[in-house]
Formats: sequence, structure tokens, C-alpha cells
Amino acid sequence: MTANKWVYSFGNGAADGEGSMKNLLGGKGAGLAEMSRLGLPVPPGFTITTEVCTHYYANAQTYPADLKPAVETAVAAIGKTVGAGFGDAKNPLLVSVRSGARVSMPGMMDTVLNLGLNTATTEGLAKLTGDARFAYDSYRRFIHMYSDVVLGVDHAGFEAIMDDARDTKGVELDTELDAEDLKIIAEQFKARVQEELGRPFPEDVNEQLWGAVGAVFGSWNSHRAITYRKLNNFPEEWGTAVTVQAMVFGNRGETSATGVAFTRDPATGEKIFYGEFLINAQGEDVVAGIRTPQPISKAVRERQGGRRPSMEEAMPQAYAELKAIGDRLEAHHRDMQDVEFTVQEGKLYMLQARAGKRTAEAALRIAIDMEKEGLIDRDTALLRVDPAALDQLLHPTLDPDAPRTQIAAGLGASPGAATGEAVFTAEEAEKIAAEGRAVILVRTETSPEDIHGMHAAKGILTARGGMTSHAAVVARGMGRPCVSGAGMMKIDVTKGEMFVGSTTVKRGDIITIDGAAGLVFLGAVKMRQPELTGDFATLMEWADVARRLKVRANADTETDAATARKFGAEGIGLCRTEHMFFEPDRILAVRQMILAEEKEAREAALAKLLPMQCGDFEAIFAAMAGYPVTIRLLDPPLHEFLPQKEEEIAEVAAAAGTSPAKLRARAIALHEANPMLGHRGCRLGITYPEIYEMQARAIFEAALAVAARGVKLAPVEIMIPLVGFKSELDFLKSRIDAVAVGIRGCPAYSVGTMIELPRAALRAGEIAVTAEFFSFGTNDLTQTTLGVSRDDAAGFLGEYVGKGLIPRDPFVSIDQDGVGELIRIASERGRMTRKNLKLGICGEHGGDPASIKFCHDSGLDYVSCSPFRVPVARLAAAQAALRK
Amino acid sequence: MTANKWVYSFGNGAADGEGSMKNLLGGKGAGLAEMSRLGLPVPPGFTITTEVCTHYYANAQTYPADLKPAVETAVAAIGKTVGAGFGDAKNPLLVSVRSGARVSMPGMMDTVLNLGLNTATTEGLAKLTGDARFAYDSYRRFIHMYSDVVLGVDHAGFEAIMDDARDTKGVELDTELDAEDLKIIAEQFKARVQEELGRPFPEDVNEQLWGAVGAVFGSWNSHRAITYRKLNNFPEEWGTAVTVQAMVFGNRGETSATGVAFTRDPATGEKIFYGEFLINAQGEDVVAGIRTPQPISKAVRERQGGRRPSMEEAMPQAYAELKAIGDRLEAHHRDMQDVEFTVQEGKLYMLQARAGKRTAEAALRIAIDMEKEGLIDRDTALLRVDPAALDQLLHPTLDPDAPRTQIAAGLGASPGAATGEAVFTAEEAEKIAAEGRAVILVRTETSPEDIHGMHAAKGILTARGGMTSHAAVVARGMGRPCVSGAGMMKIDVTKGEMFVGSTTVKRGDIITIDGAAGLVFLGAVKMRQPELTGDFATLMEWADVARRLKVRANADTETDAATARKFGAEGIGLCRTEHMFFEPDRILAVRQMILAEEKEAREAALAKLLPMQCGDFEAIFAAMAGYPVTIRLLDPPLHEFLPQKEEEIAEVAAAAGTSPAKLRARAIALHEANPMLGHRGCRLGITYPEIYEMQARAIFEAALAVAARGVKLAPVEIMIPLVGFKSELDFLKSRIDAVAVGIRGCPAYSVGTMIELPRAALRAGEIAVTAEFFSFGTNDLTQTTLGVSRDDAAGFLGEYVGKGLIPRDPFVSIDQDGVGELIRIASERGRMTRKNLKLGICGEHGGDPASIKFCHDSGLDYVSCSPFRVPVARLAAAQAALRK
Repeated sequence: MTANKWVYSFGNGAADGEGSMKNLLGGKGAGLAEMSRLGLPVPPGFTITTEVCTHYYANAQTYPADLKPAVETAVAAIGKTVGAGFGDAKNPLLVSVRSGARVSMPGMMDTVLNLGLNTATTEGLAKLTGDARFAYDSYRRFIHMYSDVVLGVDHAGFEAIMDDARDTKGVELDTELDAEDLKIIAEQFKARVQEELGRPFPEDVNEQLWGAVGAVFGSWNSHRAITYRKLNNFPEEWGTAVTVQAMVFGNRGETSATGVAFTRDPATGEKIFYGEFLINAQGEDVVAGIRTPQPISKAVRERQGGRRPSMEEAMPQAYAELKAIGDRLEAHHRDMQDVEFTVQEGKLYMLQARAGKRTAEAALRIAIDMEKEGLIDRDTALLRVDPAALDQLLHPTLDPDAPRTQIAAGLGASPGAATGEAVFTAEEAEKIAAEGRAVILVRTETSPEDIHGMHAAKGILTARGGMTSHAAVVARGMGRPCVSGAGMMKIDVTKGEMFVGSTTVKRGDIITIDGAAGLVFLGAVKMRQPELTGDFATLMEWADVARRLKVRANADTETDAATARKFGAEGIGLCRTEHMFFEPDRILAVRQMILAEEKEAREAALAKLLPMQCGDFEAIFAAMAGYPVTIRLLDPPLHEFLPQKEEEIAEVAAAAGTSPAKLRARAIALHEANPMLGHRGCRLGITYPEIYEMQARAIFEAALAVAARGVKLAPVEIMIPLVGFKSELDFLKSRIDAVAVGIRGCPAYSVGTMIELPRAALRAGEIAVTAEFFSFGTNDLTQTTLGVSRDDAAGFLGEYVGKGLIPRDPFVSIDQDGVGELIRIASERGRMTRKNLKLGICGEHGGDPASIKFCHDSGLDYVSCSPFRVPVARLAAAQAALRK
Repeated sequence: MTANKWVYSFGNGAADGEGSMKNLLGGKGAGLAEMSRLGLPVPPGFTITTEVCTHYYANAQTYPADLKPAVETAVAAIGKTVGAGFGDAKNPLLVSVRSGARVSMPGMMDTVLNLGLNTATTEGLAKLTGDARFAYDSYRRFIHMYSDVVLGVDHAGFEAIMDDARDTKGVELDTELDAEDLKIIAEQFKARVQEELGRPFPEDVNEQLWGAVGAVFGSWNSHRAITYRKLNNFPEEWGTAVTVQAMVFGNRGETSATGVAFTRDPATGEKIFYGEFLINAQGEDVVAGIRTPQPISKAVRERQGGRRPSMEEAMPQAYAELKAIGDRLEAHHRDMQDVEFTVQEGKLYMLQARAGKRTAEAALRIAIDMEKEGLIDRDTALLRVDPAALDQLLHPTLDPDAPRTQIAAGLGASPGAATGEAVFTAEEAEKIAAEGRAVILVRTETSPEDIHGMHAAKGILTARGGMTSHAAVVARGMGRPCVSGAGMMKIDVTKGEMFVGSTTVKRGDIITIDGAAGLVFLGAVKMRQPELTGDFATLMEWADVARRLKVRANADTETDAATARKFGAEGIGLCRTEHMFFEPDRILAVRQMILAEEKEAREAALAKLLPMQCGDFEAIFAAMAGYPVTIRLLDPPLHEFLPQKEEEIAEVAAAAGTSPAKLRARAIALHEANPMLGHRGCRLGITYPEIYEMQARAIFEAALAVAARGVKLAPVEIMIPLVGFKSELDFLKSRIDAVAVGIRGCPAYSVGTMIELPRAALRAGEIAVTAEFFSFGTNDLTQTTLGVSRDDAAGFLGEYVGKGLIPRDPFVSIDQDGVGELIRIASERGRMTRKNLKLGICGEHGGDPASIKFCHDSGLDYVSCSPFRVPVARLAAAQAALRK
């Protein structure tokens, strides 16, 4: 084995690593290295690489042999830079130990501050700083944090000790405790550890250090981290780095502070220096949401109507330096920066810099603005917006004119509006959401343990915490509307109630939140559709230039078609005709048709349906004037149309002039053991050709009628579902052609097929002799290729993802190895036969960015998705083209 | 277009064609050409090739332009040879027009005799022969046959005229009608045609000829012919030839006769000159079964106890010549011959020679005998026996010691015994058989219209007709037991009854037939398993030498395993374990296991099942000592094990100590929309690993126990069902390996997987990293590849075959284009990863000869089928190897 470099030092205007080395050093380590190279004020430190993490898990949780000396050297180098010694009782070096994966995983990984303190060094620190309170406050914080994170001691015990101490002294705040109190508390903490673990809290600073490093690596496989990776599709193999850095202290009094800043507003994207800080606090206090921080800039403070001074006002010099650094970093990285900083006794230190997380709205605005500012080009701008997140912008906001009853206000932490039942625990949120009901998760503050509940909720509301609190950050990442820091709310989790002034909201009561304005309302408030203009329209315009894939929509009604057009769909890729059969005024005729045992009776019933279907198609053709419409002929098993309840059966029997017994018998006869693999799709068309003939006639007549009104029409595309054999398509196409021959001046049309069975994919070469286009029905193709019924998958697919057997639900993102290979085979063989065969996809995967990339790479002509996903698909298609 | 030769003449010791040209001239035409070349007495004639048939259907039912002159020339040549003129009133040439495809399709194609007769030529013939009765009898027969076959006039009208004529004259037999009667009848027949069609019966002999030729080509696409082709998997493209031949007459009096002969007994294979003839009759009389013919040889007559003279006795000279020709033809063709002949006034004419149809028993005996006689080699002998037909020999015969009540006797027309409900129409047979009930089709005589009923019946019983009657020939071809010519039966189709002496058998009464002995019994008679010795054993021995594919059996019990070994299975390819769970003494524990909501409770229930499963496996391992056994772990959805009826639920609830409501709720929770694609197979093993762990433990402990008794064991093969992802197999194999590690002295084993999902086939390369063998589960693979549920396919697959959309039921014979490609892909990719990967098939296709050929060609190592199909598979595997 060649000697690996496991440890990368930084500080003092230099660094072993650099900003591009995120995969090796993690986002945090790379950012610090880069800042150090730029000569920014970074406390010195070093990063243990992600390769050590990989080695750690590959080798039964052990380290490479040569890691230890490298760390020792690096620690010594920090000491030399800051002029202190690790474990030196006279002049102790304190360090922080933090995790850092290649992407930020907020709240997921554990951090230890003030490491290096023990009985001796704490006393030394007190002497050295002349601030015993600071020294013992730091020590008790360290013991608490280290015990919790590294030693796994329940933190409730420590809180009880703190409570006792405050009670004994008769004070309310920790800041009212003095050095002696804190020293006693530290001793009590250590006694608690001894009691809990049967061994003492480590006094040896090196033992402390290696314990913390191990805890960081260990936390990579914590349940929370695994959940987060799963939600975000990050592979386990990435691993985390560990960054060890000299401590600086924001809690050294009123000239000290700590905070976070964004070079632009992460919620709106506005070009304003944005952030929050807390005076006399350590960094964790800001993120944890325990105290509500102040804005850093005066403008923001004024806008929010805050009374306490902003950093710009309280620490003008440090603020000016911070702002300049922020500007420099943004220009350097050509992206919005999220920085963490500490001011120690007036001096600014940079602790982290990374591309800032942002809402979809902000991502959009920043991308467009930066392009206009000349910072980035259009392709880069397009790649800066996550298509999946774009979905947020397409969701409703509150109708400004709608009546409402406001009950609380907080921070607009994540935009969008949501209505749902108030619930007060993550478990409740998950449970009720699983029943298909909308919930708003209401918490005093959120913690990583709440993530599953936040995921299940339509919106999140917290009583405490700022714009960068856990709730706010996670909600923005998930695209959930969030109001944070609505401090007037009192929540009683046990009773399942919250009180806001005189209002009581009980579990299950409907509330509405406006995550942009930070407002909370009682009951439901009318929503408004999003405006698709401005930056959004600009981005879509650019995307349309960049992409090669066409984007169509799945739309079955005139309304769907209109929405699809509004979102920029370039046609309908899937117009299902079965929904049309369910309309109340038709279902009778449909049922008569199904009940008919003779062809003649069936034809009579179909004759009644013909003008109705014709009307459906006319409306859709008119809405899509000039754009292609692919109409799929009847697909589902006939029994789906039959009445199920006894009273329905009686009603239909009376209307259809048959006996309930006969109707019931027919329903039983049509029942299937596995309807998904049963008598459906083109199989219906083959056993009852008159159904498809009626549909073909309705299509042609509708097209003629619309054309007669002067509307320009693209040639109609008639799509035959569930074809497995060329002979099926031949049989049906010849019947459709025969209908066309019988219609005077029949409009242009083509006949194609869904490719949704493995056999169809394999035999695509011969099927393409007849089929004029293919549309991949990836829902069914996934079901058959994987042998998994979507209706029944809930029983095991979740567990599959949970156990890591499959990376993602294959019904959400296409199984590229299995289903994908069949798509590639079918495309290749189909085009071998028919060079210009049009290829599209119309399963639900058509709106999934990863699947869209796959479709682009596989040479498909278009994707078709639900109307609301069309913009997502347009952007994803552009990104696919740019990344090809 | 180059000039094709459309017409091949023969006769007079020469021929344009020869015996090898069956594809072009049809079996009949080629046989006649070959006999002509051999100098045998063949009436001259010519054959219009099958290419004309192809041209006919490809060109809107028209003939090639140059066909007509070629036919005219050929007709003239016949006339020159026999010294007569076509349409010559003084000396008329009469011809027969027959169809002839490359294989014999008995009863399927139409024939016209005596063509060339009209008012003038009949009178000329009467004068020329001095036999007016013969001339007018021939004429009325010609009008009747031609009107029926060519003109499509219902023959009932002609029969009514015949009835009237007999009544008027007060006679019973047609032979009692004289020339004048027949002349009047001929005129009445023509009048009937005029009435029916509105145009006269054709007097022009050329119009007659072309009409007949057209009718032959038209009959190629008759419903009957299509049905027969479908039953026998003959492609439509083959087409039929038309043979036109000078007439000879077996109805010229007592020195004339017609008959058929086989060079060996087609029922038993015995080397005896076998056949039947009728004096003073035309060929159709024999085949139609209207008169019961006599044996041709004295030995057979004596054996059958017949009183009327054999041909050997009645016409010794013609018989001797016929026998010599038969011997010569058999030696020439090295196969048993079936010849048709006519004796006209003492002179023998050969009308047809072909390889004779035979029962499986006869095919076996003839193949073995001919090899011993040195006529053919072993490979040829192996290829002479149809593996599918071999099945007949493996079916039960009547137990000679069983009590029985004989009610009738006839001819043993097709061997084997069958018991079922008596039904009297083909429609009834089909209907009742579709309900899963066994039926015996009882008819006075059968006709091609009855084929679907014969196919549906377990056995066929007729009151009229000989060994070569329609019923006998078709039954042998289908492998159905048949008793023909049981003349004592009177059948009343309308009432649905038959009378035999004093016994009345009503529709639905159970009867049994012995198709070897020709006996009919009332009620069911005990059956006996076939003996697998003698010729059968010899053939199997040869097959085992010739084949490369191993043959295993699908066996779940000790009894199945013993049967499998008896039939020569070389292991078990599929031992399903779910049946074991249904045993009455286990189902309680099984249900407790399913009902358990906690792992611990499930494990407790599984602990009860462990010793039982262990016992199952011990018995199977002992039965298969030394041969490999592949055990498939639990496969079906859990809900299949749950009680369905309320009383069952109550019972189980009481025993399991739970409430019926809870049990019902659990059953509902486990219910699936598409269980075939649901929570089953390895998915159960992943959600409930303890089930598979128990099964693995049972397998290992059973193997150890059996080995401890000194039984040699092949390494056990543990098979994981329904794998789609390598990760599934990894997850489960590691658990099985962990069980093995925990067992002291654990026996050798391998872990493999079913390939039964398209995804598994596509990802075979990576799955083979873990899997040590593959077994293609072609039932499921067919379901998923085609998207067809076997349980629901009845609703449309029959129609698919009926409409010609698919050639065969893909659950019977493997869909080589679709499913087959996946098998080839999986084999190739699997072996790329693991060079010696063992490959087998264990779907029901493993017993289908065409599928076995496919498996051989695809390089599989073995097929596994039901125990009774093992000999079929051994022979099919040998033939596959020989045909490769």
C-alpha cells in the first residue's frame, strides 16, 4: 500500500488542500482550506480525509496505522501557530472537532467544541484569560457536549444538574451562574458520567481527541444520518471527513459574538447581505434555535421591525470586514455563500464557507441575477436550479383577497402556503399523513429526530428558532412551507393543544401557514395559483433553448390540457380515455356495453358513447391546437367499471333492464386474480374490437369537427396499450385503418404503441414495422420487469429501501439497470426498423429529473408528465443536455 | 418472373417429381411420383404444386397465368396414357382431384372423384363399359360430392332425394337401385343444384376441373383445416398441392375392391401386413366408416374372428401383388408404409403411399424393430418416436384384476384406457371438459366437425367405422383412447341416451373404455400404471446415450421423488416447500407463524415447524440418494395460507388464541390486488428472514441425518425464488450461510436462484456473482415478460390462438422470441460471470418437446418437469441433440 495522505492542514494563509477537494476533505474542510489560501482569517486546523472514514468502515472500525503520527504532527502545528499546547496546563490549546461530508447535512452530524479542557487546563485557561467564569463555562459545556455526543450519556441528567444549580441559587438564566457555580457543575457532570458509565470522564486530551474523531465517523452511520442520506439519495460510500480546528470564542463577553451570514437572502434570493448573530454566544447557540438571534444588517433589522441592534450597528468594524469577505467569497466561487463566523473580543474569524442552501425561489432569482451580473453564464445558471425543488414555485400561495383569521406571526422561514390538521409530534404527523390527510407539524423547536415527521407534513410551524434554525433549514431543503419563531405560541404536547392568546388549537384542528410572510391562520385559507412569469419565465426560456428532449403532459381533460399548455407542454403524451367513461352521465351506457353479451348489443351501447367521446376529444384538440395529442385507447380491465355495492348493482340493473343477479354474476365473471396481468389494454380491443373502433371513430370525427372550425391540428396519434406481440398491433391497426377509410376526408393520424411489457421491448424491432411511434409506459414496464405490483409494493418496498437493498423506489425514479436496459433495447431495435421512430415516455417517471436525464441519454424524443411537473421536466431536460 | 414449373406429371413408370419433393408436391403427389418411378401400377396423373397455393393466396385467389396451358397439356397426357379423352363423350377420361399437403391431414381436405362426367360422357361411359348402372351410379356420386365440396350445396337435400328413391322403390340399400333409378336421381340432383344456386350444375368438364382445383385450394383455409393445423402446429404457409389422377374403379363389381394397408400394425407396431378393404366400393367408403370393412390378411381376420373372407382369401393374386409392393415400399423408404389401393376388375392400382400414422406404442415398437432388422440406425430410431405421443404409453391401462361391467365391444382403435361422463355431441364434450370434468365422447361415427370435441374428451367411442375410420385415425393422432365400430350401441343424440342391449347410458353417466382391447364398461374401472420395460426401456437407454441435457423432475414429496426416479429422473430440479406447509397437522403452526406480529412469536411458531420440515427433507433426500435435489424456499403470498371461510377463521382463532376479528383483519391486510406481483418469493424471506432461516436449518439437519444413516448425498441446492436484485440474494445467502456456520459439520450446499423476472434475466451477470446456479422459472417468467396472468389468461388467450395472433399457448410451449431471448441473455451473462454456472429450467415447459429443444439449443444443463413427463423429456432431449 502506498502511503496515503490522511491529514490536510490549513491556517496562517496557507493550506495543504483547496476548495475543489470536497470529496476528500468534505465541504467544511475544503472551504476552510480555500479560505486559508485566500488569506482570510481562519483559525488554524487540519482535516482528516473521507478516505479515512472509508478505511474505518472497511476495516472493522479501525484507523490506518500511519494516521496517528500525522494527527500528532498536525495538532502540534496548530499549537505552534496559535502559540499554545494541546494539554498544556499553562497555555492550553482548545480545538473543535466537526464532521464534514462532501455536501452539507445540517443537524445530521455531531460536533464537539472546547476539546482539550480538563481539570488542569481549565484552571490554566482561567488564569491565562483572567476569566474563570469563561473557563468553567467552557468546561461544563464541553463535558456536557462530549458526554452526549461521544460517550452517549443521556443529556437529561446534565440538564437536571443545571436546573438544580439555578434553583439552589434562585436564578433563572445560566448567565447568572458564576465561575464557582460552574466549577461545581463541571464536577457534578463528571460524577454523573462516572456513575453512568462506571469510568471517569477522560482527563487525557488525546483520549478526548480520538474519542471525538471516532464519534464523528460513528455518526456517519447513525440512524439520523442514514435517514437524511436516503431522503436525499446520497450514497453511503461518500463518508465524512473530520475537521479539527483551534477554538475561537464568541462567548468572551459583549465584544464577542457568533453568527451565520448569507451573501444573498436564502429565502428570496434578493441581493442583500443576510444573516443572524448572537452576542456572547457559541456557534451552536445560533443553529440550535435556543435564543432567537438578531439580523446582521441594519436594513434587514429595520425591515423586520426588530428593536435590538444589528451586527452592522453593534460591531461596525467586524461587520464591514465580514461583508467584504462575503463579497470576495461570492465573487471567487461565483455562487451565493453561506459563512459561519465568530468575533472574539472584536476580532473576526471565519469558521466555514460554502455554497448556501436556498429555496427554489432564491435559487431561481440568484441564478438569473448572477447571469445578469455577468458572474455566470446561462448554462451555469440553468444548472444552479434543482429541478425537483422547482416544484415549490408551482405550488399555490394564499389568495391575498381571501378572508382569514390570523392567530400568530413568526419568521417566513420557507416559502409556500399549506393547510392541514395541527399535530404536535413527528410520529403523529407521519401516522396521519399515511392516512392521506394533510398535517401541519407544530413544534416548540425541531431537532433531527423530527425529520420523518417534517417529511410527512405539508408545512412546519415552530415557536422558537430563526431563519437558520433546524426547522427553517430542513424545511427549505424539503420544499415544505415553514413559519419559525412564532414565540407567542405555547404548546402542550401531552394534551395535544397549543395556545395563542385566547385561541386554543387542538390536535386535528385545521390551520394554515404562509411560509413566505411567516403568518399562521385558523382554518383553511383560499389559495392562489403561482405566477409563472419573471425569473421563472426567463429560466424556462433558457431551458427551452438548451434542451433537446420535448416535454409533453399527461392530460385527460380540457382543464388538464389548458394547465399543461400554461406550463409549456408541447403536446399531450398520454391522454387516457378511461376516465371519460366514468362521467356520471356516461357510466350507464358504459355498463350496458360491458354487460352486453352479444356484439350487436355492445355496438348499440357504444353508439350512445360515441358522441360523448367525440365531444371529449374535440375539447382536448381545441385546447392543444397545433400540438400533437397522443390518445391511448381503453386500457383498464372491464370489471373496474362495474358497480360494486349492492345498491349500485340494483340501480344499474334497473336502468340496464337486467337482473341484479345477472349483473353480479357478470361482475364475478370479470373479476381477475391479477388484473394488472389480465384482460386489459389491447386485449380488450382484440376481444371486443368494436370498442376500439368506436374510439377511433370518435377521434377522427372530433378532429374533423375541430378542423372545420379552422383550428390547425397536428396529426392525431392513436396509441394502443399493452402490446406484447406485433400481431396484436396489426390486428388493431387494420381495424382503425378500416374505420378511417370509412370516414370522408379522414384527418391525418398515426398509430403507435405503448411499450410496457418486456416482450414488447424485446420484439421492438418487429413491432416497429407496424408502430409509427413508441411510448414507454414505465409504470407497467416497471411492474412487469421487476415483478412488483405498485398496488402491493407498500408491503415490502419501503423495507427494501430501509435495508439498503434498493437505492430508491423504482416507481419514483426509473430502475436504469433493469427497466432502463429494456428501454435502451427497445429504442435501438425500434429505430433499426424505423429510422425516425418517435420515442417518448409517459409513465410517472416522465416528471422525475433523474429519469429525464436517463431519457435524454437514451435518445428519446420526449417525456410526458403531469401538467404541474412540466416546468420541472423542461429544466431537467435542459440540465440533461448540458451535462451530456 | 422466371417461368415456374407449376405442374408435375407422373405415370407409366416415370414422373417429373420424386418422393423427396413433399414440400412442393405434397405427401400424396410425392408418393405417387416415387411409386411411378419405381414402376409400380399407378394410374397416370399430375400434381399442381404447393407454390400455386401460395401464389393463389398471395394474389387475391388467382392462379399464375401460365398454369392453365400446363394443366391442359398434363390432362391431355393422362388421356393419351389411358387412351381416353377428357370430355370425350365416346371414350371419356375421368379423374379424381385430391388435395395433398406436405403432411397428411386426414379428413381435413376435400376430394372429388369421377370428375369428367356430364350428361354426354355418362352416357358414353355406360356404352363403353356396357354397365349403365356403374355409369349413372358414378355420375350421381360425382354430382353429390362435387355439389357438396365445390359448390357448397348442403348434402342433406341429396340424401333426401336418395331416401325418396329408396322409399318409392321400396328398397333399403343404394345397391338395390338400378341404372334408370340412378339416372333419375342424377337429374334430380342437378335440379336441386339449379334450385339452390340459381345456375345449372356444370356440364363443361374443364369448368368442373377448375372448380375442383379451386375448392382444394379453398379448403386449405377452411375452419377445419385451420383447426387441425393449429392443433398440430403446422404453419399456414405450407399450402397444399392438388393431384389430378385418372380414375380407377373399385366399384366395378365383385372383382373390384378398394382398401388401405399398413406394412405393420399401426396400433401395436407388430410386423404384420395389416389393412382393410371393401369389395365393390370406392375409396371414400372405407375412410368414411359407412360400411365396416374386412381385414386384408387371413391371419388378422382369424385373429379378429371375422367370418367374411379377407382380401388374401378373396383376391389372392391382387393381395400377393399388394403385399410385395408394400414390402418393397417399406424397404425403399425404411419406414412403415400406409398405402391406398384399388382393384379394378382384378387389376391392382396404387393410389397413395406414405409413412403410416401410428400410435406411440407402434412407433416405439417399429423404431426398435427396424433398428434390430438393420433397416435404420439408432439415431433414426430415436427420431422416429414423437416424444409428445410417448406420453400415451405412460398413462394407465385397466387393471386386469379389477371388477368391471362390460356393456359393449368394438375395435381397439387407439390404445389407453379412459373413464368419464358419456356425452353425445362435440359441443357437450367441450363444454363439460371446460369445467374440468372428464368426458367420453360417444358418436355413431365422427366427422371433422367433431374434432374439437374429440380433443376435449378423455376418450372416444363410436358405433360405426373401422380401424382407419375418421374416429380411429384422429384419436390415435391425438393420443386419445378410442373404441370404434361398437355396432351394438344405439345412440339417441336428441335425448342424450344410448342403448346397449338392456342397458341405458344417459348423458353424464360414467363409462370406461379400453382403447387397446376395444371394450366398453359401465362405471369407472380401476387403472394400472404402465410398465416401463422392453422396447420402452431400450428407447430410453438409447435416448440417454444421445442426449446432452440432464432431465430432472419437479417433486415435492417422497412419493413424487420415487415416481421421478422410476421414470429415470436424474435429480429434483424443483422441490417446492409450500405444499408441505398445508399438511393438516401443520397448518395451525403455519397460521400462528403468519399471524405473529413480533419476530419472537414467529420464531416460536417456526420452531414447531422445523422438525416437520426436517422430516420432509429427510424422506426426499433418502429417495434421491446420490442425485441432486434443488429445494426452493417458501414462495407464495402468505395470505394463501390463511383460512377463508368464517368457520375456519373461528376454528383457527380459537386454536391460535386470537380473536376471529383480528384474524380476519390480518387476512384482509395480507390481501393483495395482484398477488402474482406481490409480497411473495424472496420478498417474504427479506421481510421475515426467520422463515428462510428455519428452512435452511431444516435442509441442513435433514441432510446430516440422512448422511448419518450412510446414504450418499449430492450437495444440496438451495434455491431462492423471485429474485430481481443481486442485493436480495446477497441478503438471503448471507443468512443461510450464517445458519450453516452454526451447524456442526454442516453438509455441502450451494445457493442459487430462480430466474423468473425479466430484471433478473437482464442482471444475470451480477446475480451470478452470488448465485451458484440458475433455474429458469418459466411460468413466472412468461407471466411477467408477456404481462399475462396464467390465472386470468383464459379470458383471452384462447381467442388469441383462435384468431391466429399467437401460434401456441405460451404457458404450454415456451415463447422463444420473447421469454426465450431473456433466457438466452441470462445464460450468456450468467456464464460470463461464472463460467460453470449450472443452468436449468423448472417451469412446466420443462416437459414440452419444443421447449426442451430450445433449452438444448440455449446450452442449458438440465430440464425439470413433472415425473410423468420425464421419459418424454429424455427422448425430446435426445432428439434435440441429434437435430442440433
